[in-house]
Amino acid sequence: MALTVSKTPTGSEYKVKDISQAKFGRLEIELAETAILIETVTALGAEVRWCSCNIFSTQDHATAAIARDSAAVFVWKGESLEEYWRCMEKALDWGPGGGPDMVVDDGGDATLLIHEGVKAKEEYEKSGKFPDVNGCENGEFRIVLRIIKDGLLVDPTRYRRMKKRLVGVSEETTTGVKRLYQMQANGTLFFPAINVNDSVTKSKFDNLYGCQHSLLDGLMRATNVMIAGKIAVVCGYGDVGKGCAVALKQAGARVIVTEIDPICALQALMEGIPVLTLEDVVSEADIFVTTTGNKNIIMVHHMKLMKNNAIVCNIGHFDNEIDMHGLETYPGVKRITIKPQTDCWVFPETNNSIIVLAEGRLMNLGCATGHPSFVMSYSFTNQVIAQLELWKEKGTGKYEKTVYVLPKHLDEKVAALHLGKLGAKLIKLTPAQATYISVPVDGPYKPPQYKY
Amino acid sequence: MALTVSKTPTGSEYKVKDISQAKFGRLEIELAETAILIETVTALGAEVRWCSCNIFSTQDHATAAIARDSAAVFVWKGESLEEYWRCMEKALDWGPGGGPDMVVDDGGDATLLIHEGVKAKEEYEKSGKFPDVNGCENGEFRIVLRIIKDGLLVDPTRYRRMKKRLVGVSEETTTGVKRLYQMQANGTLFFPAINVNDSVTKSKFDNLYGCQHSLLDGLMRATNVMIAGKIAVVCGYGDVGKGCAVALKQAGARVIVTEIDPICALQALMEGIPVLTLEDVVSEADIFVTTTGNKNIIMVHHMKLMKNNAIVCNIGHFDNEIDMHGLETYPGVKRITIKPQTDCWVFPETNNSIIVLAEGRLMNLGCATGHPSFVMSYSFTNQVIAQLELWKEKGTGKYEKTVYVLPKHLDEKVAALHLGKLGAKLIKLTPAQATYISVPVDGPYKPPQYKY
Amino acid sequence: MALTVSKTPTGSEYKVKDISQAKFGRLEIELAETAILIETVTALGAEVRWCSCNIFSTQDHATAAIARDSAAVFVWKGESLEEYWRCMEKALDWGPGGGPDMVVDDGGDATLLIHEGVKAKEEYEKSGKFPDVNGCENGEFRIVLRIIKDGLLVDPTRYRRMKKRLVGVSEETTTGVKRLYQMQANGTLFFPAINVNDSVTKSKFDNLYGCQHSLLDGLMRATNVMIAGKIAVVCGYGDVGKGCAVALKQAGARVIVTEIDPICALQALMEGIPVLTLEDVVSEADIFVTTTGNKNIIMVHHMKLMKNNAIVCNIGHFDNEIDMHGLETYPGVKRITIKPQTDCWVFPETNNSIIVLAEGRLMNLGCATGHPSFVMSYSFTNQVIAQLELWKEKGTGKYEKTVYVLPKHLDEKVAALHLGKLGAKLIKLTPAQATYISVPVDGPYKPPQYKY
Amino acid sequence: MALTVSKTPTGSEYKVKDISQAKFGRLEIELAETAILIETVTALGAEVRWCSCNIFSTQDHATAAIARDSAAVFVWKGESLEEYWRCMEKALDWGPGGGPDMVVDDGGDATLLIHEGVKAKEEYEKSGKFPDVNGCENGEFRIVLRIIKDGLLVDPTRYRRMKKRLVGVSEETTTGVKRLYQMQANGTLFFPAINVNDSVTKSKFDNLYGCQHSLLDGLMRATNVMIAGKIAVVCGYGDVGKGCAVALKQAGARVIVTEIDPICALQALMEGIPVLTLEDVVSEADIFVTTTGNKNIIMVHHMKLMKNNAIVCNIGHFDNEIDMHGLETYPGVKRITIKPQTDCWVFPETNNSIIVLAEGRLMNLGCATGHPSFVMSYSFTNQVIAQLELWKEKGTGKYEKTVYVLPKHLDEKVAALHLGKLGAKLIKLTPAQATYISVPVDGPYKPPQYKY
Repeated sequence: MALTVSKTPTGSEYKVKDISQAKFGRLEIELAETAILIETVTALGAEVRWCSCNIFSTQDHATAAIARDSAAVFVWKGESLEEYWRCMEKALDWGPGGGPDMVVDDGGDATLLIHEGVKAKEEYEKSGKFPDVNGCENGEFRIVLRIIKDGLLVDPTRYRRMKKRLVGVSEETTTGVKRLYQMQANGTLFFPAINVNDSVTKSKFDNLYGCQHSLLDGLMRATNVMIAGKIAVVCGYGDVGKGCAVALKQAGARVIVTEIDPICALQALMEGIPVLTLEDVVSEADIFVTTTGNKNIIMVHHMKLMKNNAIVCNIGHFDNEIDMHGLETYPGVKRITIKPQTDCWVFPETNNSIIVLAEGRLMNLGCATGHPSFVMSYSFTNQVIAQLELWKEKGTGKYEKTVYVLPKHLDEKVAALHLGKLGAKLIKLTPAQATYISVPVDGPYKPPQYKY
Repeated sequence: MALTVSKTPTGSEYKVKDISQAKFGRLEIELAETAILIETVTALGAEVRWCSCNIFSTQDHATAAIARDSAAVFVWKGESLEEYWRCMEKALDWGPGGGPDMVVDDGGDATLLIHEGVKAKEEYEKSGKFPDVNGCENGEFRIVLRIIKDGLLVDPTRYRRMKKRLVGVSEETTTGVKRLYQMQANGTLFFPAINVNDSVTKSKFDNLYGCQHSLLDGLMRATNVMIAGKIAVVCGYGDVGKGCAVALKQAGARVIVTEIDPICALQALMEGIPVLTLEDVVSEADIFVTTTGNKNIIMVHHMKLMKNNAIVCNIGHFDNEIDMHGLETYPGVKRITIKPQTDCWVFPETNNSIIVLAEGRLMNLGCATGHPSFVMSYSFTNQVIAQLELWKEKGTGKYEKTVYVLPKHLDEKVAALHLGKLGAKLIKLTPAQATYISVPVDGPYKPPQYKY
Repeated sequence: MALTVSKTPTGSEYKVKDISQAKFGRLEIELAETAILIETVTALGAEVRWCSCNIFSTQDHATAAIARDSAAVFVWKGESLEEYWRCMEKALDWGPGGGPDMVVDDGGDATLLIHEGVKAKEEYEKSGKFPDVNGCENGEFRIVLRIIKDGLLVDPTRYRRMKKRLVGVSEETTTGVKRLYQMQANGTLFFPAINVNDSVTKSKFDNLYGCQHSLLDGLMRATNVMIAGKIAVVCGYGDVGKGCAVALKQAGARVIVTEIDPICALQALMEGIPVLTLEDVVSEADIFVTTTGNKNIIMVHHMKLMKNNAIVCNIGHFDNEIDMHGLETYPGVKRITIKPQTDCWVFPETNNSIIVLAEGRLMNLGCATGHPSFVMSYSFTNQVIAQLELWKEKGTGKYEKTVYVLPKHLDEKVAALHLGKLGAKLIKLTPAQATYISVPVDGPYKPPQYKY
Repeated sequence: MALTVSKTPTGSEYKVKDISQAKFGRLEIELAETAILIETVTALGAEVRWCSCNIFSTQDHATAAIARDSAAVFVWKGESLEEYWRCMEKALDWGPGGGPDMVVDDGGDATLLIHEGVKAKEEYEKSGKFPDVNGCENGEFRIVLRIIKDGLLVDPTRYRRMKKRLVGVSEETTTGVKRLYQMQANGTLFFPAINVNDSVTKSKFDNLYGCQHSLLDGLMRATNVMIAGKIAVVCGYGDVGKGCAVALKQAGARVIVTEIDPICALQALMEGIPVLTLEDVVSEADIFVTTTGNKNIIMVHHMKLMKNNAIVCNIGHFDNEIDMHGLETYPGVKRITIKPQTDCWVFPETNNSIIVLAEGRLMNLGCATGHPSFVMSYSFTNQVIAQLELWKEKGTGKYEKTVYVLPKHLDEKVAALHLGKLGAKLIKLTPAQATYISVPVDGPYKPPQYKY
């Protein structure tokens, strides 16, 4: 499968749903409160090529505007997985002699593709063999390997050139960061990485307040369900789970949390939320939300026990939080698509339906429009600061092939940049007060172990 | 303007957006929790003709399903006012020898049309004159008068037949009920009316919890604005205002209420919400919501003072809560439609925009899909019970040409019918306990003055 | 038993705990936000005699100050029931030729004593017999009858004089009002009564926000229990129950409600609170609160099933909401008084304790200091307005021997009087707006059936 | 000044308010949910001597029970500063040949006394001079120096013996920990210290949920103020400030936060709380709470501008958060003690009062009974675990003269130990899931930078 791309009058490549929506997209972008990452990076001088981090997350009209005005983009809502990875490959392809110099990642797929590409190339040089595409059990990874293989056949040095050129990556998700630390532990990471997810202004805001907003948005758009009076199970009580639990509780649901971590469990309890296992509540609850960042959280054997029209969705991580494979292959199960991203699945034994959102992928992206721009701006400001930092220190040796967190004063700066819009005024420490609590007058104000 | 209607294979008339959406509509209807008013009434034996109560409130796919399967419907999202009233006229037109026998009203427009029709007919018989259509200052009312006049020319006895045949109306909105009490006071009401709005299970649920849900839904879909951190002004702190204020507060906004009524004001204060005038906060707030049921709440001179991209919307009543006329006729103002029901209005002096939702009409209907079906079911159950009661007592003289509220035991019954779905179990009074508090064992449990 | 009273230098009678606490009491009274009912009535010209409405509710230092400065008071914290009723008798005793002219009642005990006194007198005149004191099964009522009998022996016309002179009563509790309506229904009420409890500014504020505050206060002072994380059962979801449920929920408890009324039950559900029976949860919950205004809510057979150190308390009504008699007479039960108003009761079978607050009486009065003065001021302003109204209309025939609610404009006035202290500003209706919604510009603003 | 102590029949020393309250104290201790630190340590084999960390924080009846049954205690509510430090000295005095081996500290005063004692001794050996007591400007520190000097005159090697013998300290407060890090930075710390404050199960629970509970408790007991409707300023939005802000907000106050740290400020904003400076709101607010851990937060020039009867209190740190010195020495100011720990201060210019709680010291300790036992149990379990760890590793060299945080698996253990009491059930990771997210099946489950 090849990706056919178009070009703007100025020669910028794109593949989007409908370039004629550019005007509408531009209007909406102008209303956005602060969070135009692509155009910020462009304004800072970068030449940007862009793809998505999720097959359902794109707003096609915004993409059209970006394609027309600012960057090469290869993305549309409702890509197949094959298309998704082809778009990623295309976004990384500056042609001979071109970039990328740096990667802004979200979920770690770009980082994965580059590292797997290099690995395949090196393996090929050693053994003369390409990866065993067909032998790969994981369907999505099979696609990745095939794309790498196809690419190497056309342009054998592509990933090697990237490896050589790349200054670093900044990554903003829990999931992507986890992969980076694994690569660091394995010694396979081959460029510096800034973990933007663990900036306080990211994880305690985007993950928490973003999901608090967009979970409800997704539920409302997809199902219009009355949340008040319902029983909702939130699997996981990390930052995302906390945001979801508080949103559901405030909307009038009775919330139950499942957890593995006793500290997070105790936090839920202190907020008046019972902590139980999925088995305890599976047949009583009306809404199930996975937020764990882990796999195999809600299995098909759970789904069979649910009430008719129970809603099942994931806002945590990949579509493997919910056992979509088990559901799709369940004997006799029937899928009725109500509308895109909202499917009824009917079990043959009971004729009971469950409603699965966004095919098990991130429901706030698939069923709504993701987080609001203002909270994304916190995350994107971290991304921009990280990119500037990596570029500034290129060649200085400050950053090694390992994972970094932004220093606290930059984290505080991200927050400070957003206070004015919300009408806030800070107090200044006096020198005597600063001395008394042993911090600089201008911060950073907290010790590293501080939890906020 | 004439309304061209289609017919189903079984001969049922309709005018909807796209009858081919019937299948999708039926799927969504099947997911609805309980609130299928039209099909309930049909199942009870009625022959139903239906139109909308709001030009933006229709979900066209659901309408298509109803048209195909159950009732004659004349409605689509985005009608002009002319079309709206033509649809209403059509819905009331059973042809010679036909109904309607009863009216289910929402906002009082059907009741208005019938009463104005009768009035025009009677005036004509007295004076030989039709209403002075062109002399009418109110644009919408001009349409009503013209339709009545046109109708009387074609079928002079149409409204007189209705008056004779109609058994009564049940009405579910604060606004519609206010009109009914005005007609009762004026002695012009010519059939019994059941005020369903003041059933506790309506006004304290639909108005409160419905708006608590659908205000956010409308804001999110129309603007995707981050509500956390914003300043929101809720004009009015009745049931609708209470629902809106709590929703915004829980979503992280700082809420300010405006009120005329000191009791409602004191309630807001006890909930931690400041009560100020619009003038005090107009230039600081980010979101404005009118919920008053009154007119001229947010005037164009207020809108001029608002911050850039302030959001202005109405969830209370007609589009005259917001001074749309003043805005539309403001010299040099520029309207930029972002998408249907979401308009930027740019003031020439400041180049500042405000964002007006649903053209000043009910934003939860215009920008989202209204209240969830479960809470609507409380209201619709009241409607059905009221219709059954009116029909049962037809000709018995129990109900005179005045406005009634459903008796408390029926109100309690509406609630009781919904408890099972939410897993609730009631306690039964013992006879000794019932005697002790002087109520029947089976209710009603509260004195008439009880406020819930 | 006779009540020995003292006299102030100016000759005012009193019986209080410790008159030397007057200075401390005065200091606290000066800090009170607005609610000095006795001294307001005194300042308006009344000669006041005062007793309590609850054996545990008195703050002895405040009483000392009142005794010293303003009124005859007969009350202390921790009266026996005998003492309680003797104080009431004393408070009603102006001596020959004296009052009372009017009664400010709270719970209806003064009204009861007067009515029972008159009844006994009339019975005696008819049959020559005094009430059968010893034949009375209810222990507290036995005391009432004995006091009446003793009193009639000393001063045979005492209650008849009261009946003749009394202009009316104003009553502020749900319980007292219930009695008044029962007397009205039976035709035994012999003076006009103003039901202040059903003023919106009373029942929706004192009952709700007062209990929301003072329930926590009572729990904290009596037990210092960590509420976060606990399971709390609130029996009854009227105004008091709503206040208690929200307080416990916000403090981090998981709240469960029991109800008989389906409408109140549905309200709880919409707020995310499950509605179950006591049996469902009796062995799991940590805290039990009765708020019903009914009797026999938590029985000793429930208490036996509770967890060790479960807390049981009543904030609704008399001590018969909790089966104190059953507990006290349970074979082998052991009572350990931790401190006044906080008792452990140990069941012999399990050696499990439960902790009962305020001996089953109102725990916010017994274990804390009742509601804050500011919210009491709403109630007391209603009382004062009612007293002024009764006195003004004395002899005009406006008020008959029946129960009245204050008109809405006075209710609105009560609210309006408290807005300034909280920094609120109201909007004024324009005449056009007032006409549009058919209300006077200055209110009242709502129809009678409005629920707030 | 010498401290006269008594002895129990078994020879244990004590100085408490009233040993006859031991029975009452024991009853209350038995009701405590889990948090009996002294008796836990005793049960583990320690010989314990105990004093307070705050002159107002003691519950005298509980102390009596401990004195009678378990440990040597030297403490009562309402000590003078002189008495406070004498008690501390006494608690550290095992006599010749005795301990202490380890210190459980809360606020760092014991650690301070020992370090200053050693410093004085070493200085004396060098220079032959004792500290210049009278030359010390800080009144409280003057007391410390005098006690040290007096002590060294009697027993010159006392602090040197302690230094030699002490295995380490565990410290549970933000303030105490700050001192430890300062000593570590200065190189003056002479034993290992475990920072228990930064255990997640301490700082995110005790500081947050403890204060959420006990702030209200203190306000209610001291003032019985109606919180609903009031404006409350919380100075600082760390863990303590967050707990206070949410408590006040839920109780119906309008909360305003002051902050120096932009991240904490942004958190407040996302929760709907405005962030302003004290100057902006000082004359409008009703309640002021300091939570900063810093000094000079509310100065006398602020207090002069406050509304009459504004409440000023501190729940953060020492009494220097509020400028008590400035207040006490303000020309013409008048202090009226309403009751212990509740003082009116009247400014001469305006005759306005402010109400200061607990003389500016921790109001939850001074005006109420501190945090509930259940949340303290989280902190105390950390203390016990830290003490066990220090003792176990005594002499192994594992811990150097520096500050440590408990490892995450112990933090998780503290949480796990409390889940059962709240009815919680955890899920177990499968090995596949654990591998997938790269954590051990039994935890710890989170990376070090995780914020909870």
